[in-house]
Amino acid sequence: MTVSVLNGVHDVSTERRPVPVPGTGEVLVRVLAVGTCGSDVHYYEHGRIGDFVVERPLVLGHEPSGVVVANGPGATLHEPGTRVSLEPGVPCSRCAECRLGRYNLCPHMRFFGTPPVDGAFREYVVLREEFAYPVPDALSDEAAGLLEPLSVGVWACRKARVGPGSRVLITGAGPVGLVATQTARAFGATEVVVTDVNGKRLRLAGELGATATVDVSASSLAESGYEPDVLLECSGVPSAIGQAIRLVGRAGRVVLVGMGGDEIPLPLAHVQGFEIEVTGTFRYANTWPTALALAAGGEVDLDRLVTHRFGLAEAERALTVATRDDSVIKAVVLPHA
Amino acid sequence: MTVSVLNGVHDVSTERRPVPVPGTGEVLVRVLAVGTCGSDVHYYEHGRIGDFVVERPLVLGHEPSGVVVANGPGATLHEPGTRVSLEPGVPCSRCAECRLGRYNLCPHMRFFGTPPVDGAFREYVVLREEFAYPVPDALSDEAAGLLEPLSVGVWACRKARVGPGSRVLITGAGPVGLVATQTARAFGATEVVVTDVNGKRLRLAGELGATATVDVSASSLAESGYEPDVLLECSGVPSAIGQAIRLVGRAGRVVLVGMGGDEIPLPLAHVQGFEIEVTGTFRYANTWPTALALAAGGEVDLDRLVTHRFGLAEAERALTVATRDDSVIKAVVLPHA
Amino acid sequence: MTVSVLNGVHDVSTERRPVPVPGTGEVLVRVLAVGTCGSDVHYYEHGRIGDFVVERPLVLGHEPSGVVVANGPGATLHEPGTRVSLEPGVPCSRCAECRLGRYNLCPHMRFFGTPPVDGAFREYVVLREEFAYPVPDALSDEAAGLLEPLSVGVWACRKARVGPGSRVLITGAGPVGLVATQTARAFGATEVVVTDVNGKRLRLAGELGATATVDVSASSLAESGYEPDVLLECSGVPSAIGQAIRLVGRAGRVVLVGMGGDEIPLPLAHVQGFEIEVTGTFRYANTWPTALALAAGGEVDLDRLVTHRFGLAEAERALTVATRDDSVIKAVVLPHA
Amino acid sequence: MTVSVLNGVHDVSTERRPVPVPGTGEVLVRVLAVGTCGSDVHYYEHGRIGDFVVERPLVLGHEPSGVVVANGPGATLHEPGTRVSLEPGVPCSRCAECRLGRYNLCPHMRFFGTPPVDGAFREYVVLREEFAYPVPDALSDEAAGLLEPLSVGVWACRKARVGPGSRVLITGAGPVGLVATQTARAFGATEVVVTDVNGKRLRLAGELGATATVDVSASSLAESGYEPDVLLECSGVPSAIGQAIRLVGRAGRVVLVGMGGDEIPLPLAHVQGFEIEVTGTFRYANTWPTALALAAGGEVDLDRLVTHRFGLAEAERALTVATRDDSVIKAVVLPHA
Repeated sequence: MTVSVLNGVHDVSTERRPVPVPGTGEVLVRVLAVGTCGSDVHYYEHGRIGDFVVERPLVLGHEPSGVVVANGPGATLHEPGTRVSLEPGVPCSRCAECRLGRYNLCPHMRFFGTPPVDGAFREYVVLREEFAYPVPDALSDEAAGLLEPLSVGVWACRKARVGPGSRVLITGAGPVGLVATQTARAFGATEVVVTDVNGKRLRLAGELGATATVDVSASSLAESGYEPDVLLECSGVPSAIGQAIRLVGRAGRVVLVGMGGDEIPLPLAHVQGFEIEVTGTFRYANTWPTALALAAGGEVDLDRLVTHRFGLAEAERALTVATRDDSVIKAVVLPHA
Repeated sequence: MTVSVLNGVHDVSTERRPVPVPGTGEVLVRVLAVGTCGSDVHYYEHGRIGDFVVERPLVLGHEPSGVVVANGPGATLHEPGTRVSLEPGVPCSRCAECRLGRYNLCPHMRFFGTPPVDGAFREYVVLREEFAYPVPDALSDEAAGLLEPLSVGVWACRKARVGPGSRVLITGAGPVGLVATQTARAFGATEVVVTDVNGKRLRLAGELGATATVDVSASSLAESGYEPDVLLECSGVPSAIGQAIRLVGRAGRVVLVGMGGDEIPLPLAHVQGFEIEVTGTFRYANTWPTALALAAGGEVDLDRLVTHRFGLAEAERALTVATRDDSVIKAVVLPHA
Repeated sequence: MTVSVLNGVHDVSTERRPVPVPGTGEVLVRVLAVGTCGSDVHYYEHGRIGDFVVERPLVLGHEPSGVVVANGPGATLHEPGTRVSLEPGVPCSRCAECRLGRYNLCPHMRFFGTPPVDGAFREYVVLREEFAYPVPDALSDEAAGLLEPLSVGVWACRKARVGPGSRVLITGAGPVGLVATQTARAFGATEVVVTDVNGKRLRLAGELGATATVDVSASSLAESGYEPDVLLECSGVPSAIGQAIRLVGRAGRVVLVGMGGDEIPLPLAHVQGFEIEVTGTFRYANTWPTALALAAGGEVDLDRLVTHRFGLAEAERALTVATRDDSVIKAVVLPHA
Repeated sequence: MTVSVLNGVHDVSTERRPVPVPGTGEVLVRVLAVGTCGSDVHYYEHGRIGDFVVERPLVLGHEPSGVVVANGPGATLHEPGTRVSLEPGVPCSRCAECRLGRYNLCPHMRFFGTPPVDGAFREYVVLREEFAYPVPDALSDEAAGLLEPLSVGVWACRKARVGPGSRVLITGAGPVGLVATQTARAFGATEVVVTDVNGKRLRLAGELGATATVDVSASSLAESGYEPDVLLECSGVPSAIGQAIRLVGRAGRVVLVGMGGDEIPLPLAHVQGFEIEVTGTFRYANTWPTALALAAGGEVDLDRLVTHRFGLAEAERALTVATRDDSVIKAVVLPHA
C-alpha cells in the first residue's frame, strides 16, 4: 500500500509498505478520508510537540474514516463492508485511568500520528474493533473522519457543563473553535459569542450558529460587558487567555482547549472571587456515540468545514496549505482518490 | 457597649456605642469569643483588600461565637440563653446566586468586618437568626467561633472533592492550612502531606493529622515523587503555586485558598495533559452544619489552634502579635473577659 | 377586581374583591393569561390533593403571565409596563433547603392555587419581584404563562441528566409529556420515544419532536427492544410505571413526574442489576431562566399546546372541558378577555 | 490441588484438579483466605440466584486473598511472593460500560463463584494481574479477603454520596450492614443508626461505630422521628424497605443493597414530594484502592467480622453454620490450613 511518511522537519515522502495484518480483536480498515489537524502541521514544522519527538519516520493523520475489509481473530463487531469512523487512540484498558473510564489519560495510550505510533495517511490501517464506529449512509466519508475534531468539541462542552440556556464565549474560530461553536449550540447554549481576528472565519462561525461574533483586532470584548457562563478557549494565544478568563461570570467554567505553551497567567483574584473553575482538555473519552448522534441528526454540520482535498501523494500540501491561504478551514487527505 | 474600631492603617481605638437593636427576623447576640484572621491583620496594616477599602471607621472580626440575648420581631429559632456560633455573612437571599444555593457569591453580601459592614470586635452584634447555630456544651466558646475558619476548610475540601482514600497536598501550615489538614482527614483522606518553612507549624500539622510534613526551606517536594490527587493551596505564595500544581496527578483537583495577589502563573501544558481542575474559594456556603458536626464529634480539634487571648481593649495586640511571634497560630478576642 | 373562586367540589363562582396591595419587595401584576393544570382540575373534582385540602374558598391557577402595574416599597427590578412570566411559588428563602438552592423543597413554600394560598384566576396578583421574569415581545402572553409547565419539563430533564445523544422514553403525551418531549430535544436528546393511548396526542408529540410514538393500546413497547437511557414517566398510571422501568438500560435514570398515588411497584432486581436511578420531581427550582431561553429561542413551541381559551367568568369550563373533549391539550384563562 | 465443588443443591464435595496455568497478563495465586458470602449460601441452598443457575459443578467463593506464586506471559505488576487481595470479577474491558468506567455493569463480566465461572474455594486461582492488589503486612490474610465485602460498603456509600456530617440509616446488621456501618463512618457520617432484630449484631454494630441501634422487633423506628439523609438498605426484607424509605428526609438518597426479590413497593408520593433518589448496587467498580486505604489505615476493622474458620474439606460447614448459629458474622475458608 502507499503511505505518506514524515521523515523529519519539512520532509514528507511517499512509500510503499505491506498492508498491515489485523491482530486479535482488530479490524483492517481501508482508509477513505483523513482530516488534517494543527498538530499534524506542528509535527511537520517543528518535529515535536512538547515531549513527543519525531525520532523515526512517522505517518501522520488521526482523523480517519474508512471501510472495514477484514476482521482479525476474535473480532466480531463489524461485517466487512461496514463504513466506519475511527477513534484514533487505543488505551491499555487495564490501568487505573482506563478502569475509571478516563482512558484519555491512560499513560500507555497508543494514538495515531503521535510518535512512535503511525497514523492514517495511508491506504490501510488496523485498529481494535471497538474503536471503529459504524456510520449511517447520510454521513459523508469526510464527516465520518471529522467526528474526531467533533469529539474535541463534545469533550470541551462536557468539561464545561454546557447545557440548555448556557451563555458561551469561544475564543478562536479555527477548526476547533468552529466545531465548538456548533457543539455548544447542540448542547443547548442559547448565546455563543465567537472571537477571532479573521473575518472569514467569523462569518463562517455566524453561519454555523454563533449568536454574535467579535473581531478582536477591531473592538474589545471587555468593553462589551458580556459575561459568559462558559469560556471555551480555542485560540491558544497566551496574552488573550487571561483577559478572556476575567470576563467569565460567577461560578463560571473555563476550558482551555487551544495549545498555548507551557505556562499562562491566571487571574487568581478573579478565579477566587468568582469561584471560577479552570481546566484543560487532553483528547477525549467516550465521545464517539454522542458525536455520531449529533452529526447524523444534523445538529452539527461537518462538511461545511472541509475546504481543501488532497490525494495521498499530495499529503505535504495538505500540511502546508493552511499557512499560505487563510481561507483554509480543514484540509482532508483522501488516500484512494 | 464597648467596641474596638479600626480608624485607619495602624490605628485602632476603643469606643462606647449603643447596643444594637435586632430587626425583623434578627437576634441580638452577646459576643463571647472572636478569632482573628489574616484578613483582619491585612486591613489593619494596609487599609484595604483589593477593592474593599476602609474609608470610614470599621469594626473588624468575623469569627464570633456568642449567646442569644434577645429576639427581634418574628425571630423564633433561638431561646434567649442559647449559645451559638455565628456565620458572619448575610446574603440578600433573592438574587440568582442566592436562589441557586451559591450565596457566598451573592453580590449584595453583607459580611462582618468587610467595609462598610462592621464586624464582631464588640460586646454585642445583631444577625439574621438563621445565621446563628446552636452549639453543644462540649464545644468551647472559642471553638464555636472557629467554626468560621473550619468552614473555609470544609468548603475547600468540598470544592476539591476530597474523599475516602484521597491523597492530599496542603501547601502552607498557617491557620487555614492547619484547619484544612484536619478537614481533609475528616473527609477521609488517607494521605495528607503538609509543607511550610516554619518547623513549629509543621510539628503542629503532624499532631493534627498530617501523615507527612515537608520543610520546603530544606528539601524539595518535587524530588519526593509525591503525586497528590488534590492540592489545597493555603500559602498564597505565587512562586510556589505553579510548582505545586505541577505535582498534581491525572484528573487531580487544585483549590487555591491562599490569597496570592492578582495573578499567578498557571502551568497550562500540565493542566491540559493531566486534565487538572483548578479553582479558588470565596468564603463558603452551607458549611456550618458540617463544620459543627465535625467539631462536635471530635473529628476536628479547634481548641489546639488557639495560642493567644486578648480582651477587647487589647484588640490591636491581637492584630499585631502574629507578626512579632512565630508561635502564634490563632489569637482570639474575648469581648467580655 | 373579578376573581374566580373554588368554593368546594364542583362549585366555582365569580366574586368581586379589592385589588391587592404589593408589600415590601413585591410587584402588583395585571394577569394576562393563566394555563389550566391537571392539579387545578383535581382540586375542582376532589377538593384535595394528598394532604392539601380545600377547606376555605380558594382561587386556582398557577401558570400566569401578566404585566407589572406597580411596585411595592423597595421593589426596583421591574418598570411598570413590563410584561412578565410569573414563577408561582415563593419560598421562605431562610430555611436550610432554600439556602442550599433546593427551594422547591422549602417546607414553608407559598404556592399559587395550593391551599391556603390563592392562585391567579383573577385580574391582579402580587408577588415577590424576583419571581417575575421579563419576557421578550416575541413570546405570546399565553406562552409566557406556560413557562410554568415548561419548567416542569426542564426540571425533569435536569434530574434525568438528559443531554446530547440521550435516548429518552416518555410515557404519557398529556401536556406534561408534550412539554417534556420538546424539552428533551432541546437538551440534545437524539431519540425521544413517546407512548400514550390517544392517537391525537401522539400525532402532536411527533410534530413537536418525538422521533417515534407508540400507541400502547395497540402494541407493546416491551417487544420493541427499545432500551432508553432515560425514562420520564408522565402518565401516572401505576401499572405502567413498573413495566416502563424494566425497559431502562444500564445506569439509566428514571424520573417519576406523573402523579400516581401513594405507592407503586418498583422492579428491585432490575434497579439493582442495572443500577438504575429512580427519583421524582416536586415542582422545580431555578428553571425560569432556562425555560425562558428555550421558549424565546424557539427551541420549544408552547403556543402549539393551547387548544382552548376562556374568560374569567368561564373558568369553570376551563376546568371541565378536558374531561369532555379529548382534543384538549391546554385550556387557558384570559382574565381580561 | 484440592478444590471444593458445589455439585448441586446441598451437595458439596472435595476434588483434586490440576493447578491452573496463568494466561497472558495473568497471575497464579495461592489462596490464603476466602470469606463466605450470603450469595454462596444461596447457591448452596437453592442452586440459583435469579437468572444465574448452577447447571454444572461450580466452585464457590469470591472474597479471596492470596500470594502471587507465578506470572503468566506479559504479567509484570507483581513479584512472586507478594501478598494480594483479589477483586473477583474481571470485565471484558472493551464494551461501552467498561470504557465508561462502569465495569461492574459489563454484560461480559466473569465473576468468581457465579455460574459458569469457578470461584476461590480451592488452593490456587488465576486472575488478570491488575485485579490483584498488594496488601501491607499490617493487614491479615482474612482482612485482605474481606476487602471484597468492604468494597460493597464503599460502593454503597459512594452511590449514596455519604460525606462529612451525613446522617445515615442502615437497615440490617448482617455482614454487609456491619461493613456499611464502618464505611459510612469512614466517609465522615456523624450519625449512623443501625436496625436489626438480632441483639448480638446490634451490639457489634455499636462497637463498630453505629451512633445508635434500634431493635425493630421491640420498637418502631418511625416513631423515633429520625429523618436520615441516607438510607443504606441492607436487610432485603421487602416489607421493611418501603417503611424505611418513608423516613428519609428531603433530597435524601436510598441505596438498595440487600437482595429482596423481584419487586418491592415504592412510596411514590414521598419519593416525589421529597425528591428522594433511589438506586441499587450491583457489585462495585474502582473500589479496591479506597477499601485498601481504609482497612490499612485502621478506619475499618475487618478482623472483627470473622467469627468462624474452616479448612477446604469443611467448606460445606462454612456454608451451613450461619443458619444454625446466630453468632456467625463471617465464616472464612482457609484453603491451606
